[in-house]
Amino acid sequence: MENTEGDSKEELRLMDDIVIRYLEKPKLKNAVFVEGLPGIGNVGKLAAEHLIDELGAEKFAEIVSKHFPPQVMVTDGGLVKLVNNELWYVKGAGKGVDIVFLVGDYQGINPEGQYELSDFILQVLQDLDVKRIFTLGGYGVGKIIDKPRVFGAATDEGLVKEMEEFGVVFTRSETGTGINGASGLLLGLGALYGMRSVCFMGETSGYFVDPKSARSVLEVLTKALGVEVDFADLEEKAKQIDSITARLREQQEPKPEEPSKDLGYIG
Amino acid sequence: MENTEGDSKEELRLMDDIVIRYLEKPKLKNAVFVEGLPGIGNVGKLAAEHLIDELGAEKFAEIVSKHFPPQVMVTDGGLVKLVNNELWYVKGAGKGVDIVFLVGDYQGINPEGQYELSDFILQVLQDLDVKRIFTLGGYGVGKIIDKPRVFGAATDEGLVKEMEEFGVVFTRSETGTGINGASGLLLGLGALYGMRSVCFMGETSGYFVDPKSARSVLEVLTKALGVEVDFADLEEKAKQIDSITARLREQQEPKPEEPSKDLGYIG
Amino acid sequence: MENTEGDSKEELRLMDDIVIRYLEKPKLKNAVFVEGLPGIGNVGKLAAEHLIDELGAEKFAEIVSKHFPPQVMVTDGGLVKLVNNELWYVKGAGKGVDIVFLVGDYQGINPEGQYELSDFILQVLQDLDVKRIFTLGGYGVGKIIDKPRVFGAATDEGLVKEMEEFGVVFTRSETGTGINGASGLLLGLGALYGMRSVCFMGETSGYFVDPKSARSVLEVLTKALGVEVDFADLEEKAKQIDSITARLREQQEPKPEEPSKDLGYIG
Amino acid sequence: MENTEGDSKEELRLMDDIVIRYLEKPKLKNAVFVEGLPGIGNVGKLAAEHLIDELGAEKFAEIVSKHFPPQVMVTDGGLVKLVNNELWYVKGAGKGVDIVFLVGDYQGINPEGQYELSDFILQVLQDLDVKRIFTLGGYGVGKIIDKPRVFGAATDEGLVKEMEEFGVVFTRSETGTGINGASGLLLGLGALYGMRSVCFMGETSGYFVDPKSARSVLEVLTKALGVEVDFADLEEKAKQIDSITARLREQQEPKPEEPSKDLGYIG
Repeated sequence: MENTEGDSKEELRLMDDIVIRYLEKPKLKNAVFVEGLPGIGNVGKLAAEHLIDELGAEKFAEIVSKHFPPQVMVTDGGLVKLVNNELWYVKGAGKGVDIVFLVGDYQGINPEGQYELSDFILQVLQDLDVKRIFTLGGYGVGKIIDKPRVFGAATDEGLVKEMEEFGVVFTRSETGTGINGASGLLLGLGALYGMRSVCFMGETSGYFVDPKSARSVLEVLTKALGVEVDFADLEEKAKQIDSITARLREQQEPKPEEPSKDLGYIG
Repeated sequence: MENTEGDSKEELRLMDDIVIRYLEKPKLKNAVFVEGLPGIGNVGKLAAEHLIDELGAEKFAEIVSKHFPPQVMVTDGGLVKLVNNELWYVKGAGKGVDIVFLVGDYQGINPEGQYELSDFILQVLQDLDVKRIFTLGGYGVGKIIDKPRVFGAATDEGLVKEMEEFGVVFTRSETGTGINGASGLLLGLGALYGMRSVCFMGETSGYFVDPKSARSVLEVLTKALGVEVDFADLEEKAKQIDSITARLREQQEPKPEEPSKDLGYIG
Repeated sequence: MENTEGDSKEELRLMDDIVIRYLEKPKLKNAVFVEGLPGIGNVGKLAAEHLIDELGAEKFAEIVSKHFPPQVMVTDGGLVKLVNNELWYVKGAGKGVDIVFLVGDYQGINPEGQYELSDFILQVLQDLDVKRIFTLGGYGVGKIIDKPRVFGAATDEGLVKEMEEFGVVFTRSETGTGINGASGLLLGLGALYGMRSVCFMGETSGYFVDPKSARSVLEVLTKALGVEVDFADLEEKAKQIDSITARLREQQEPKPEEPSKDLGYIG
Repeated sequence: MENTEGDSKEELRLMDDIVIRYLEKPKLKNAVFVEGLPGIGNVGKLAAEHLIDELGAEKFAEIVSKHFPPQVMVTDGGLVKLVNNELWYVKGAGKGVDIVFLVGDYQGINPEGQYELSDFILQVLQDLDVKRIFTLGGYGVGKIIDKPRVFGAATDEGLVKEMEEFGVVFTRSETGTGINGASGLLLGLGALYGMRSVCFMGETSGYFVDPKSARSVLEVLTKALGVEVDFADLEEKAKQIDSITARLREQQEPKPEEPSKDLGYIG
């Protein structure tokens, strides 16, 4: 389209599809990566954020992208924050493991975006000498679970055996036909980069955010990482959710102690 | 795909994703930018267009893009206009402020388009020496509001305090979880360009175009800009809308003065 | 994504977004362009194809594109044809006018594709020395029309006046808020290329393909082009459609000559 | 979007839209290509996979793409596999034909992806000296068919005649208006590459995976390829499906041998 009027047409450079801004470039060794983006029951997000808090990890990079929704979040006091993903790290946690975390407001909102974001992250991780990937998510079962199991999927049989020791359940039938989104792609694309990866999926109803399922996932993950954390915060959150769901159930159930008006007339 | 028949394949240059055509290149100093694209209740659009009229601003650029709907508008007399966004400016308004306006037929119709258009605009603004951004929009509350408040969100605490002086309400709970579209992105991406920005959102039902809410927003904005404008036109539009909504409410309410036929027979 | 196994990764060239294959490159002078792609009531398509037949135009180029549906048409005898758009031409028609036609199976299936295809076509037209554009379409009114009027929209007032002479109706209120798709974009983008353009929209119910409306459009267009054509084929098609719609109406209407069983018993 | 803080912005290379990884590069001569991707009744997929098994073909390449869903499949034992398409080959089958197969988890999930994947495959096939293409699919008829016919569509009349000898039905009316997806595009784009192609569509209800229809397609295809295969596996699968559909029909039909309670009381 040429300009037939006016004097000039500006050829302006557009924003890249994915932009990373480093606050710091950590030097890590044989690092382990933990992904906890939003998903079913926000199990992965709750688990990763809890670990970040408990291990005192620090944010070192922010990622913004056209593949996220065109949105800013309004934080306390009226300040805005462009929706993003964030990378955090901790050095020498527990028995000496370096860990990189990925958390954020959203996953990519379309298939191409999901692929590009996961591929982008994997290249960042290669750069950081990450050798092993843990992705965290929920496995929706459509009913409230008292003791959520943790299902697994991995890139090789050695990892399967290793993780079974920590109580992870690896069976085809239970995990259905596939793992969608970042938790799956980071494994599938990661394998092409030669990275050994495992996905932990905590059983969850899928109806609420599920701190109980997040705790189940963390109990396995902390063993695998060789770190120890306190679960008091997650327990507190789980109690709040339990009390909300209990109230909801009460409202739906018949209440024998409160006879209906009609029955009362009969008496 | 090669050509197996025929003599030639044309490699034609395609239209850029976003094209700007300048009618004029204004020289501005410490300019302020006001965005008023279509949105909830068309509050921002009404406010920005009213300010353009009252301050006698002039159009200096037109933006067309693949991220807009594939459509022409038919104007009076049967002339067509490709849907676009427009940039207008005024120099030395009120106490001497240079203002750039963005108005238009549509926002970008998909997330990537929204990011690209906002990023494009920000680069144009950098070029024009714009230092501060005001984005205008509506905040839908689902009921008709007599005295619409103006909610705010900003890129720094200094701006929050400054705008609170003019009656803007900055609270997390009121503004919910996010601001979508250009009004949010120009703030979020603008911060990466080092621009101080604030978004004004007028309370509105969300069911009608809302000149009353636009006026509330303008009362705040004109104070912030140090300009004075007449609101007669907006008041006139507000009266028209009020009379339409009043008629709609009448049609839905029971009318005691007009007894139903059935009751009449009884009498 | 690097390859960690295997010996080679192929970097293959992908198909262009739009590919044109010329069967012939006509030399034209001050040519006129007529667009008749599928749309409301297929009015434009019927009109353009009728004109191609009557003037004995010849196909000179085929356009395939990722912006069309991923589909082949199966023609008589089981042969396949990739869905496409086609360019046809005739030299020295009527009083000596060179005409280029655009017809096809589909318009672009998303907004970006619509923009890219229209822009692509306009560059081809520039190359062919096209000076004036006629786009043809239907204007849906939601009821069956006996004598369809032809509404117009144009890029300049001279064209508006010229076309009013042929009975085209140019009013803002009648044509609503916009013209979607190729019929609109070719005008809007064409103006940026300096091309004078007009769109003819035949009134149509929008429920059926509408040869009657196509005829109304052609009566105007042939006057504007200075050519004469026979309408027998379109009349025949119109009769077929009339007979189908008449039967449909009969089925829905009460039939007085066939009393209902209940009434029969009373008698 | 420039970085206003931090020290560096990484310009990372993104994954290509389509990536092929060769396990082996077979040397083939005058090869024939058979496509069997998922589709209506999974007829093509069942047929191609059966032929791969029976002829002892070997996998030689894997294709991953942003145009597939962002998903990994979980295989037996908890191992993950990124969703992909696969190329298999066999040399000198039957009377000496070299065959290349395309099978996979998904087709491209949007129109552009469909075009790009088909074009990509065609370029790979050119490289492998493929001269003829067979695409396999189902033709949904909305009811269960006892003896599924095989409908055809082809790029030239010679192929139509040749395939009619094997019982393929070529009629326009039966195959409707088009063939969607890879089975159609490989023919339509293939013709532009000068490849002779034919599509076989087995009649199928469209409600279930249909091994019976796959067998009908294979009976034609094996004759066309000059190979012989055993159908025991497909027959076994067909029996399983028949028994499932029979049970479903029973559940929907009235059961005379089990009188309803109401009738029982009368007795």
